[in-house]
Amino acid sequence: MAFSKKPVTGMKDIQPAEMQIRDYLIALIKQTYKGYGFTPIETPCFESIGNLSGKQGGENEKLIFKVLKRGEKLNLADAKEENDVVDYGLRYDLTVPLSRFYANNQTTLPRPFKALQIGPVWRADRPQKGRFRQFYQCDIDILGDPSWLAEIELILATTAMLGKIGFTGFTVHINDRRVLKAMAAYAGFPADRYDEVFIILDKMDKIGLDGVRAELVENGFAQEAVDAYCGLFSDGLTIDTLSAKVDSREMAEAAASLSMITESVAQAQKTDCKLVFDPTLVRGMSYYTGTIFEITMEGFSGSVAGGGRYDEMIGRFTGQPTPAVGFSIGFERIVTILLDQGYQVPGAAEKVAFLVEKGMDASRLAEVMREAQAVRDNGATVLVSIMNKNKKFQKEQLTAEGYTDFREFYREALRN
Amino acid sequence: MAFSKKPVTGMKDIQPAEMQIRDYLIALIKQTYKGYGFTPIETPCFESIGNLSGKQGGENEKLIFKVLKRGEKLNLADAKEENDVVDYGLRYDLTVPLSRFYANNQTTLPRPFKALQIGPVWRADRPQKGRFRQFYQCDIDILGDPSWLAEIELILATTAMLGKIGFTGFTVHINDRRVLKAMAAYAGFPADRYDEVFIILDKMDKIGLDGVRAELVENGFAQEAVDAYCGLFSDGLTIDTLSAKVDSREMAEAAASLSMITESVAQAQKTDCKLVFDPTLVRGMSYYTGTIFEITMEGFSGSVAGGGRYDEMIGRFTGQPTPAVGFSIGFERIVTILLDQGYQVPGAAEKVAFLVEKGMDASRLAEVMREAQAVRDNGATVLVSIMNKNKKFQKEQLTAEGYTDFREFYREALRN
Repeated sequence: MAFSKKPVTGMKDIQPAEMQIRDYLIALIKQTYKGYGFTPIETPCFESIGNLSGKQGGENEKLIFKVLKRGEKLNLADAKEENDVVDYGLRYDLTVPLSRFYANNQTTLPRPFKALQIGPVWRADRPQKGRFRQFYQCDIDILGDPSWLAEIELILATTAMLGKIGFTGFTVHINDRRVLKAMAAYAGFPADRYDEVFIILDKMDKIGLDGVRAELVENGFAQEAVDAYCGLFSDGLTIDTLSAKVDSREMAEAAASLSMITESVAQAQKTDCKLVFDPTLVRGMSYYTGTIFEITMEGFSGSVAGGGRYDEMIGRFTGQPTPAVGFSIGFERIVTILLDQGYQVPGAAEKVAFLVEKGMDASRLAEVMREAQAVRDNGATVLVSIMNKNKKFQKEQLTAEGYTDFREFYREALRN
Repeated sequence: MAFSKKPVTGMKDIQPAEMQIRDYLIALIKQTYKGYGFTPIETPCFESIGNLSGKQGGENEKLIFKVLKRGEKLNLADAKEENDVVDYGLRYDLTVPLSRFYANNQTTLPRPFKALQIGPVWRADRPQKGRFRQFYQCDIDILGDPSWLAEIELILATTAMLGKIGFTGFTVHINDRRVLKAMAAYAGFPADRYDEVFIILDKMDKIGLDGVRAELVENGFAQEAVDAYCGLFSDGLTIDTLSAKVDSREMAEAAASLSMITESVAQAQKTDCKLVFDPTLVRGMSYYTGTIFEITMEGFSGSVAGGGRYDEMIGRFTGQPTPAVGFSIGFERIVTILLDQGYQVPGAAEKVAFLVEKGMDASRLAEVMREAQAVRDNGATVLVSIMNKNKKFQKEQLTAEGYTDFREFYREALRN
């Protein structure tokens, strides 16, 4: 088969300039989150195909890259369907692997367990500009803590992280799946169609309240219910106003929790981020059970981070209920923003180029190498390179790579 | 399909204690190698199956995890062989992807290009103790530099790295594929069977010179050639003695190169490592064309790093000859050694646990959170956790995780 120079469809080679930002960001994330007691873990990039097909993954389960069975296990001739010839799949998120990890290791893990995961995931999405089929996710999760302390820590840690990058003007949108459900119940929508309602509600920022109203009616929901529902949404709606109108146990619990979380974060946080109760916030994944949140940034569409509480998912692996809440920052999104901004990584080393004449003997070369080492010991990057015939062009190239200091070494050490 | 708690066969979950060592090691590697002007790059974990099946990979090509085609491209009913149903494979090393990366990006990359890659690779090996089907490789490569400066920099950088971990008593074994060939030619072995000779020679450390002799004869090589060949190996053989006996242009070139490299490194290096010319060093991969090297450590079998010059491989992708030399450290091996030694990562943060009484109001909790943040700003890790009923047991658990400082916070701030 022919060699192909290009990366496979929808994936990309990462160039030195982008790698510098990624490495810096990963180090900053690890340092910051470790400060909050999060512990890095790593799972294999493969999961058994059964674990990836448990419905938690929603639409992502249609996008799995599947791994062919090997050796005697592969029987191509008798294969009827895909799952006859595959045993593993590449993970499409870090949440399914975390659940399995926790189930597998819970006897030795602390409780609550605060996990930090950074790594690639794969989705066979239709290739499109700016979206790739291999991309990094960066998740923090707290397992085994049913209290709002978990949400507060996640939000404080995430906003502190974004602040450290130098981001300003961000807003934490916060809601609760129980609020969504209580509002849908108040309107009188049938309980088995709540998810449909939420999918339409999720379009609010694109189609507005009138658009949501129209689409609900189009989808066959009763006019009366739609009117009651849409009547709840008004600008500046607070959780207190809402819970006064929608009087249910679920709403009361969610309101208490949201108030506690937003007040504590507002008073404790050190960044300038705003906290906003957003009853239109849905978050796609159906596994969320409580608080949900998302962070937006002024001047940028979409969100830069998102997460929520998912108290029922881990239990499906472990067999015993395990409260869980997670926050994921949009790693690739942030890298793109920083690249577009021409972000300069702070504390980058001074870059010194040693240009060495050809034909040096071993002693003279060792002398140069020792000098290079001494400069490195002072924290600089030292590139030792053979001096080209066209020294001017060589220096121009090195300047483009960030080298600012050039030193020339000849076969005979020159006395200055 | 049923959920499985275990990682897939032959792969492993990485626990917090091991992650701490891995993260530290990766940071140390990046910092050290960047000091030598190496630039991190990253390629996708997938390569087109054609790129992975170009014979450079040797035996590894039999161990590829292959990715099933998707959608309309998959025609299971008419599939006759594996390659009808797959389009990609998981990379089995970082050298094939580097070659493709260079071919794809060479117009914008500096020359010489010094690349650093750290990342997972996959091989469907028979599962066995201590060997995993997903493992990290860590490679530095210099592309576009035909001079021995490249070898010298690679060896200095790698030994400096091992020294920084605290390793002592290591030996760099160095040889040259041209030496291997010149010796085989001297003995009179047929040129098309050199690789067979080298595979047998490679067993020297296990079966000794008599074993090598016997196996060569068994494999049908002429007794006369075998005698001439084995007569070359003697204890303490130097490159000078050897090149006096084996008089050929290839041997002379290799001898000059080896002398230059070993002398320069010996004089320039700051660690206590020994440099030894080792005419029995073969290295498995047939793509090597010049210098080859390996690092062993006292008290540990096998090698902790290895590499060599492969001047012809990149050209197969780019269409134009590109000299290349690389050095790979055994990342997983080193992690295992450090874990076994009970290695303590230097500069680990002090760990402080804030235990918080249940039922605090938002203002009081925010106060605690602000205090936690102040302690974090001083570089400590602070875990904020709800105080359990059994506080003694909770503290014992936290002590086991490395927490040394416990502070208790109650609903009402206590005056001390």
